[in-house]
Amino acid sequence: MPSRDNWKVPFSGLSEPGLVTDLYELTMAQTYFQHGMSSRATFSLFIRSYPPNRGYFVAAGLEDVLRYLEEWRFPEESIDYLVSTRMFHGDFLEYLSGVRFTGDVWAMPEGRVFFSDEPVLEVSGPVVEAQAVESYVINQVNLQTMMATKASRCVRAGQGRPIVDFSLRRTQGVDAAMKVARCSYIAGFQATSNVMAGKAYGMPLAGTMAHSFVSSYEHEVDAFRAYAESFPDRAILLIDTYDTVAGARNAALVGNEMKARGRALDGVRLDSGDLESLSREVRAVLDDAELPDVRIVASGGLDELDVDNLVGRGAPIDAFGVGTKMGVSADAPWTDMAYKLVQYGCRPVLKLSTGKVSVPGEKQVFRLRDAAGSLAGDVIALRDEDEPSAGAEGLPPEPLLRKVMQGGRTMEEAPGLDEARELLCRDLEALDDGVMALRDPAVYPVHLSPRLDRLRVDMEVSLAAESADRVAAGGTPGPVCEARPCE
Amino acid sequence: MPSRDNWKVPFSGLSEPGLVTDLYELTMAQTYFQHGMSSRATFSLFIRSYPPNRGYFVAAGLEDVLRYLEEWRFPEESIDYLVSTRMFHGDFLEYLSGVRFTGDVWAMPEGRVFFSDEPVLEVSGPVVEAQAVESYVINQVNLQTMMATKASRCVRAGQGRPIVDFSLRRTQGVDAAMKVARCSYIAGFQATSNVMAGKAYGMPLAGTMAHSFVSSYEHEVDAFRAYAESFPDRAILLIDTYDTVAGARNAALVGNEMKARGRALDGVRLDSGDLESLSREVRAVLDDAELPDVRIVASGGLDELDVDNLVGRGAPIDAFGVGTKMGVSADAPWTDMAYKLVQYGCRPVLKLSTGKVSVPGEKQVFRLRDAAGSLAGDVIALRDEDEPSAGAEGLPPEPLLRKVMQGGRTMEEAPGLDEARELLCRDLEALDDGVMALRDPAVYPVHLSPRLDRLRVDMEVSLAAESADRVAAGGTPGPVCEARPCE
Repeated sequence: MPSRDNWKVPFSGLSEPGLVTDLYELTMAQTYFQHGMSSRATFSLFIRSYPPNRGYFVAAGLEDVLRYLEEWRFPEESIDYLVSTRMFHGDFLEYLSGVRFTGDVWAMPEGRVFFSDEPVLEVSGPVVEAQAVESYVINQVNLQTMMATKASRCVRAGQGRPIVDFSLRRTQGVDAAMKVARCSYIAGFQATSNVMAGKAYGMPLAGTMAHSFVSSYEHEVDAFRAYAESFPDRAILLIDTYDTVAGARNAALVGNEMKARGRALDGVRLDSGDLESLSREVRAVLDDAELPDVRIVASGGLDELDVDNLVGRGAPIDAFGVGTKMGVSADAPWTDMAYKLVQYGCRPVLKLSTGKVSVPGEKQVFRLRDAAGSLAGDVIALRDEDEPSAGAEGLPPEPLLRKVMQGGRTMEEAPGLDEARELLCRDLEALDDGVMALRDPAVYPVHLSPRLDRLRVDMEVSLAAESADRVAAGGTPGPVCEARPCE
Repeated sequence: MPSRDNWKVPFSGLSEPGLVTDLYELTMAQTYFQHGMSSRATFSLFIRSYPPNRGYFVAAGLEDVLRYLEEWRFPEESIDYLVSTRMFHGDFLEYLSGVRFTGDVWAMPEGRVFFSDEPVLEVSGPVVEAQAVESYVINQVNLQTMMATKASRCVRAGQGRPIVDFSLRRTQGVDAAMKVARCSYIAGFQATSNVMAGKAYGMPLAGTMAHSFVSSYEHEVDAFRAYAESFPDRAILLIDTYDTVAGARNAALVGNEMKARGRALDGVRLDSGDLESLSREVRAVLDDAELPDVRIVASGGLDELDVDNLVGRGAPIDAFGVGTKMGVSADAPWTDMAYKLVQYGCRPVLKLSTGKVSVPGEKQVFRLRDAAGSLAGDVIALRDEDEPSAGAEGLPPEPLLRKVMQGGRTMEEAPGLDEARELLCRDLEALDDGVMALRDPAVYPVHLSPRLDRLRVDMEVSLAAESADRVAAGGTPGPVCEARPCE
């Protein structure tokens, strides 16, 4: 079981965290530095739109972000490399060599459900620092949120049947493999096959055998016997190497041999073919052999829609292993997650780029509930607004963003993976079934508070007008924000 | 430029390489160990089928596989963890604590083009070793081959225009970000925005500025001026934060100010909207301002089909930045790559699972060419076969798999990334245009040698018959292979 201690995994081997960034973060930083721009900036992290068939997201990745911000620096070998590029000035590199992250982070706890346009995390700090950590922050929260969301769909499809992560071999790299395992546990998976994830996150492990094991013996039944001898209490036999039903008969033979020795075969695994009809045939073979407790595990290119179909048709499958398609979120392998400047110094800011309009200001997200406790809609507000009033019978609105880092220091012990799993479970219990539908989900209501909406509209109008004016006027430089005192 | 020294990147931070594996690799290993099965096994790594719109693959990932095999071990903390799972016997863990990879590897060099069903790599060694490294070997070769293939499509779409990797923020984790940058260079990209990849692989870096930089100034033109001052020789200004054409006018203003100081604006970047029409409008603004040398760089959710469309319609775009959709291979985020046992001891083996039939025996792949040097088809043969005869006018067939590791030792200095890039370039020059088509590519001819085909058919027939017999006969155990002397 995940323990509090194990969960704080050592920051994942990035010995030069500052360099895990896009070049432009550093060129912009040098420009800010050289022009004395060091105002506090706030960046908001959110997903612009739902990928196909998604109606909600599961927050994940915060823990890695906090570790990164704590560790963020440019050791000597990083500085030496930057010198070698001949792009940077000595005084800027001198500054970089001593820089640490000194800002604040507000975030939703891992495991919370959130929706498009809602900030899941906001980073504030001197603009150079808050800007330069962008690439890693997006990378991790995008990856982990996407994977927790995908895994959560698999759990829903299983309707209570155990789901196991088999994705290590085809995730997009080792970092992804670790994070997929982690997020699948938050989402409610029973176990992972990834041994390193088992160690790092304290997750339960699961595994059966490969086709190669079966074919390394001349006869399938010998492979089954050898494995059952080595693992008398947890043998799951892979029965589709040659012919699934014949394999089931061999497994039944070995199962009864185990029974005679006072042991019990745990299960058989199907990994190919028509899983619905094969599972029925195999169940019949096992039942005929008086082995009703031997479980049937299915795997082989499954995603949540396959699991949903099999469960829906009543296939006698007791557990599912999901690998590749879950582990790369194959139907939606990226989200449109953005990290946007929303406040600089005293001034809320936004961009108007086609299709990428952002909402200005530091924010809070309030969650409304009806009298029964079901989620009734979210309100995105400015951070300093009062909470919206609850409906006549509703419970008080819940603010979702919490201050988790102040002045570069994490404010409280990270909750365990089990706590995140529990948070998700509770949020999903209160969420409308339609929003969780695996296909064509309903849209959960998310609104801007009246004050935030007014700010956004006013700024869009004035910026559009100003942009036109300025060009017409020949681009006379205006004062930078630094020149204007706050309040 | 990539140097030989920089390329041998330190093995990517896996301090416990043995645990980066699926649990079943270790449970099978214990079974082999306890039953004294230590024959030499050969596993073949290949891709079963083409993802949509793919007609070839680019070999990549070998270098990381070789480093992994050299480093593969179970340090004390790994053994301690395995003890804690209570799944393993003391004598097996004792063996694991001292195990090293002592086998051989045959592989295609990185950068070679290959096709479905062809082994791109074969691992031979004591069965426990060759089996237990499976998960990482598949993970890395699948990831890197997929990414090199995707990037190669982007280069083709660009028709000579520079392509730059902007994917770091939305790759599936940091390992993927590094490998995507690496593979994009093999594929012919000009540069990456990923600073750590620049350092690790000696790749050229590229970068511009973010919308947040522009909006941190009250006026767009001030942001442009500040950046141009800080980077007078390599400024590329992002012009779509508010209004692209107005932004182009601001950029032209700053470009002419730079000109007056004896400097030159390098380019402008478009990141949203209708890139074809905007690029024409922006080109006109820049030309009218007598800035014909200022380049237009386009980015913003582009994949190879978008690039192909823009280039095909003659949009005046000089370079492309490709990010998310390239960096996750969005249209094909996984391949059906498998690592299959093909020989155990003296005996070729195969599996018959529905849709997953494998081809037995240790292999070689021969490439045929016509008189002009163009690729004319590949032949998959047994490793000990003579090379197939060349056509009447053809060049001699070229064996593609080379022995790169023997007894756990890498046999030669790794070629540089530039060499892989050059290999790919030459293979693609000799490959039929139809096979490289971005949509609905033609199928490149790949055949089994007559001897290999005969072996496969014979084995399928006899295995199917035997499987049926054995079950009918009540599963009498047959001798394991160890009991049968080779030759």
